[in-house]
Amino acid sequence: MKKLLLASTSTLFGETYLSYLTKDLELFFKDVDTITFVPFARPGGISHDAYTAVVIKAFSKLDKKVVGLHTYSDPKEGLEQAEAIFTGGGNTFLLVKQLHEQGLMAVIKELVESGIPYMGSSAGSNIAGPTMQTTNDMPIVYPPGFETLGLVNFNLNPHYLDPNPTGRHNGETRETRIKEFHEFNTTPVVGLREGNFIWVQNGKTLLKGKGTARIFEAGKTPYESEKIPF
Amino acid sequence: MKKLLLASTSTLFGETYLSYLTKDLELFFKDVDTITFVPFARPGGISHDAYTAVVIKAFSKLDKKVVGLHTYSDPKEGLEQAEAIFTGGGNTFLLVKQLHEQGLMAVIKELVESGIPYMGSSAGSNIAGPTMQTTNDMPIVYPPGFETLGLVNFNLNPHYLDPNPTGRHNGETRETRIKEFHEFNTTPVVGLREGNFIWVQNGKTLLKGKGTARIFEAGKTPYESEKIPF
Repeated sequence: MKKLLLASTSTLFGETYLSYLTKDLELFFKDVDTITFVPFARPGGISHDAYTAVVIKAFSKLDKKVVGLHTYSDPKEGLEQAEAIFTGGGNTFLLVKQLHEQGLMAVIKELVESGIPYMGSSAGSNIAGPTMQTTNDMPIVYPPGFETLGLVNFNLNPHYLDPNPTGRHNGETRETRIKEFHEFNTTPVVGLREGNFIWVQNGKTLLKGKGTARIFEAGKTPYESEKIPF
Repeated sequence: MKKLLLASTSTLFGETYLSYLTKDLELFFKDVDTITFVPFARPGGISHDAYTAVVIKAFSKLDKKVVGLHTYSDPKEGLEQAEAIFTGGGNTFLLVKQLHEQGLMAVIKELVESGIPYMGSSAGSNIAGPTMQTTNDMPIVYPPGFETLGLVNFNLNPHYLDPNPTGRHNGETRETRIKEFHEFNTTPVVGLREGNFIWVQNGKTLLKGKGTARIFEAGKTPYESEKIPF
């Protein structure tokens, strides 16, 4: 039975890394001593070691150990020893390229489907859907495909932003971009605002955090929802 | 000798399509009767015909005819008959996929290098650089590669946006995203704000429109420039 925590963001404005999730993380990881961290998305180009250090610090407050997946000479073996997996945010193209090229996408999928808890934030949440095609990130590297873990049957758009009613900018809004996605794809999309997260357990998919999510289905007008309808 | 007009956007806030460029377009296309329009980026999923109709209307004010490339049964032949080429904005992934799959990228490059004037806006400007890797668009389709026309020796980031100093959102800023690009690539990037455009003629690359562009070079602090320094 899958157990997932998929957060829109790691950090709320003015807060420290993961602090808004403290109580939920205690509960989510209550049976776990050590979390295997996947640092491949490297936000802002930070090194794997430096990124892992941030995560070690955040989880030390919860008395959890963290080990970076990059520290294993054989990352498949590292994953197979994992009690739980956390994939951090950053650049989704970079993350997906690494996971495909190292043959880890299928390994993570299988482990999570067998019950290993999986947490993602931002790019790490993006890859929980069938494809990474609703990421906000720049294509800084070319991955061998856009297919991702498919742990849930909808795509995510983390850091979802509403159109700015006073904006004078003509770049596409997030809503327009997701509409364009649905011209070519039928997978539904959850626009997950910062502060919101998805909790999957016992076959149920719950929306948590403040307020509603924006739901996009091909051929329908987008709508607000207090639940994940898929 | 290449002749290029690369605009950040087709439309300024509250104005009609291409209206802010009227005088420059008159000059740029002064020896041209008919412009061949590449509608493949399909902003918001608009059809090729509907998109071309918008462009026909805009250029009718300048007494220019416009023909959509999609109307040719053999688009290579269509391009070879072109007096000038205009590639419109929309989704860069979709545009690049079409151009690669139809074998048109090399054809356009060769024609423009032989002197056929090329205009791009937004996604159409993005593809003038060596790669599309500094697009803002969502990866709604999987192109066979990120390589583009390479008509200029820098990448473009159209609709460039400065970080919002009062923003409470934690998604990456445009500057952070371009910094991430430079962790893996050395091609310089021009952040082109709406209202600005690049004019290439007689071997010179000029920045036109209001204000400066933001220049990003690998390993350097980004800076403002009144010129294109490459």
